[in-house]
Amino acid sequence: MSNPISQKSLKKLAKLSIHTGLGLEKGQDLIISAPIEALPLVRLVTKEAYKAGAGLVSCFYGDDQMSLLRYKYANDASFDKAPDWLFEGMARAFDNNAARLAIIGDNPMLLAKQDPQKISRVNKAMSKAGTPVRERITAFNVNWNIIAYPSKDWAKLVFPKESEKKAVKKLAKAIFAASRADQKDPIKAWVEHNKILANKSRWLNEQNFASLHFTAKGTDLIVGLADGHEWAGGAAKAKNGITCNANIPSEEVFTTPHAKKVDGYVSSTKPLSHAGTLIDDIKVTFKNGKIIEASASKGEEVLLKLLDTDEGARRIGEVALVPHSSPISKSGILFYNTLFDENASCHIALGQCYSKCFIDGDKISKEEVEAQGGNTSAIHVDWMIGSGEMDIDGITQSGERVPVFRQGEWA
Amino acid sequence: MSNPISQKSLKKLAKLSIHTGLGLEKGQDLIISAPIEALPLVRLVTKEAYKAGAGLVSCFYGDDQMSLLRYKYANDASFDKAPDWLFEGMARAFDNNAARLAIIGDNPMLLAKQDPQKISRVNKAMSKAGTPVRERITAFNVNWNIIAYPSKDWAKLVFPKESEKKAVKKLAKAIFAASRADQKDPIKAWVEHNKILANKSRWLNEQNFASLHFTAKGTDLIVGLADGHEWAGGAAKAKNGITCNANIPSEEVFTTPHAKKVDGYVSSTKPLSHAGTLIDDIKVTFKNGKIIEASASKGEEVLLKLLDTDEGARRIGEVALVPHSSPISKSGILFYNTLFDENASCHIALGQCYSKCFIDGDKISKEEVEAQGGNTSAIHVDWMIGSGEMDIDGITQSGERVPVFRQGEWA
Repeated sequence: MSNPISQKSLKKLAKLSIHTGLGLEKGQDLIISAPIEALPLVRLVTKEAYKAGAGLVSCFYGDDQMSLLRYKYANDASFDKAPDWLFEGMARAFDNNAARLAIIGDNPMLLAKQDPQKISRVNKAMSKAGTPVRERITAFNVNWNIIAYPSKDWAKLVFPKESEKKAVKKLAKAIFAASRADQKDPIKAWVEHNKILANKSRWLNEQNFASLHFTAKGTDLIVGLADGHEWAGGAAKAKNGITCNANIPSEEVFTTPHAKKVDGYVSSTKPLSHAGTLIDDIKVTFKNGKIIEASASKGEEVLLKLLDTDEGARRIGEVALVPHSSPISKSGILFYNTLFDENASCHIALGQCYSKCFIDGDKISKEEVEAQGGNTSAIHVDWMIGSGEMDIDGITQSGERVPVFRQGEWA
Repeated sequence: MSNPISQKSLKKLAKLSIHTGLGLEKGQDLIISAPIEALPLVRLVTKEAYKAGAGLVSCFYGDDQMSLLRYKYANDASFDKAPDWLFEGMARAFDNNAARLAIIGDNPMLLAKQDPQKISRVNKAMSKAGTPVRERITAFNVNWNIIAYPSKDWAKLVFPKESEKKAVKKLAKAIFAASRADQKDPIKAWVEHNKILANKSRWLNEQNFASLHFTAKGTDLIVGLADGHEWAGGAAKAKNGITCNANIPSEEVFTTPHAKKVDGYVSSTKPLSHAGTLIDDIKVTFKNGKIIEASASKGEEVLLKLLDTDEGARRIGEVALVPHSSPISKSGILFYNTLFDENASCHIALGQCYSKCFIDGDKISKEEVEAQGGNTSAIHVDWMIGSGEMDIDGITQSGERVPVFRQGEWA
């Protein structure tokens, strides 16, 4: 086989990203970030963007090797540095209505052998420097989208028994399937898919639950929902008026929990790859919304440092429901990448909430978000808690219980 | 042959760039720009930078294919756009003492088949947006360096009769030779070379010429020198106190002409590749420092638009002396790249002057630069006017003539 990645599907993914993922409007600039290996996809996306009338397309490439060189050779002082000037510049571009596309595909285990102390310092510096961008993205100021490219190191981690080429072929196929880019008309497939997610959101919004009660082996957790929370899923309108599908793939409906009303314990059901480190078997206990105990069988030091990022890092900013029978879950593939694994499982996110997951979310102020229970933090890290054993009850404002999930499926 | 580029010399070039080119100091951040094909050199430079104590190394990659996609597919409005937010961000990084490395290697003929109108609009937009960066670089606020990587398209243009691999091998060899990266101890070789250039500068500064008179076939040009001008060449101290060699290679001594005291006519002796367009056989006539007539056998439209960028684009900001026997000239290779071709030939630059080419140049204000005859513009474009036939006389403040060059060589 010459190229293990179907060029036909790759082209469809590029087109899907521009039209459905971003809904790119004529004249909009586009800022892409991508691993250097994703160059072929960047070029396809660039072509589709210009065909759709883009103003200027810019791409910033990340290079895993360059990251490793830093850990290997840099002075200690380097590990507290981050390109704040770049994030500030990007924020300015978003204020001028540039759209944002992130192509992911980095090696989820890149930093496995590096000093967790240094990793945590880098993560903290990046979180802090990234604030101007993160604020604008989580507030949906502009249309944004994330898609994936099947990089070699990532593929070898997901399919360790295969040759590199075979592994890339399999990962490419899995990405295209999960993204619906292998379908005859992916854009139409997403219109249908968005309808289903919108129906689920509508039902949950009608219920207006006060809280959700998650139970499974290792989990007994009450997640209070923010006052005036709103469920979302699939297509969403950004504040610039453009409807986008931020995550491709996406199988979730999600909303904002109340940062001070989460109690109980919860266990992760899939490993979490965070910035090149694998964190596995997470167990945490919440009291009044705050994590008061946390452990992990792998990557515990990075997890604990992550929780120490700031006040909001020990509280959650997102809760999301995904049935155990989601296509990604059914594929049986563990991607070691949150964009995929979070869409195979119910999940929660440490840190920053999405202000759009409130009624009138496009007009709500930072102060109102906080007053209604929305969390604020320099991090937003999803991790997977769902499984085929999970039951979820919705508890209404009057205290009644409504079955939401039974044995991992919509009740 | 497996890799046509000598990895030993490439490593030496990387080390030379960090230590001699930039003189990178411990704790300094480094911002690199490079064509995507130069990834191997970027990684080597990154390693050397971190070993030298760099804070954070960032690289921005350019992609010729992405540029072409814009010309092929973008809406008309795209061609007036530039990433101003990025240049502003970089300027902020330089204000925080980040060093700057540009790795060049783009295809000199990339835009040969594109609409000159669009090319000119892009160039103008980029010049304007790039002002915050250009101002800091031409004022030598921080240490900076330019080196070259032998990219395939460039190599095939320089050696059109060779196979791609052979062409890359030859171009690599020529780059390493011109940069002195093929020598046993390149850093020491540059110490010696810098001494020679410093001696030439010293002699010219002692002369304190009022003007230079260039004569050759097609050229009879009086270039008045700025009041309080100072000649420079090779190593130079930036305003942040760090000594760097901005250009690798460099064979020139150069200074600031008087923007209003250039008269006569001059012809280019080598083609100029400017932002992907080849401009050949340039002939211009100056009156009181201003170009009042200009033509070219190739790329004339791009040249004429370039001259219309702003008021200062029709005046010159640099004059440089290079003997016809310079190593690059003797190689007989036409590089179609100014970093090399300007070091095989005397040259002048349209546009912005270097404020450091004044006495006390590290303290001089913008207003003083202008009052003393320094030119200001959004462009700085060198082009080659020297040859083996060129004579240059220095005219002293009292009107005497002193031979400077005879038949292309130091008199």
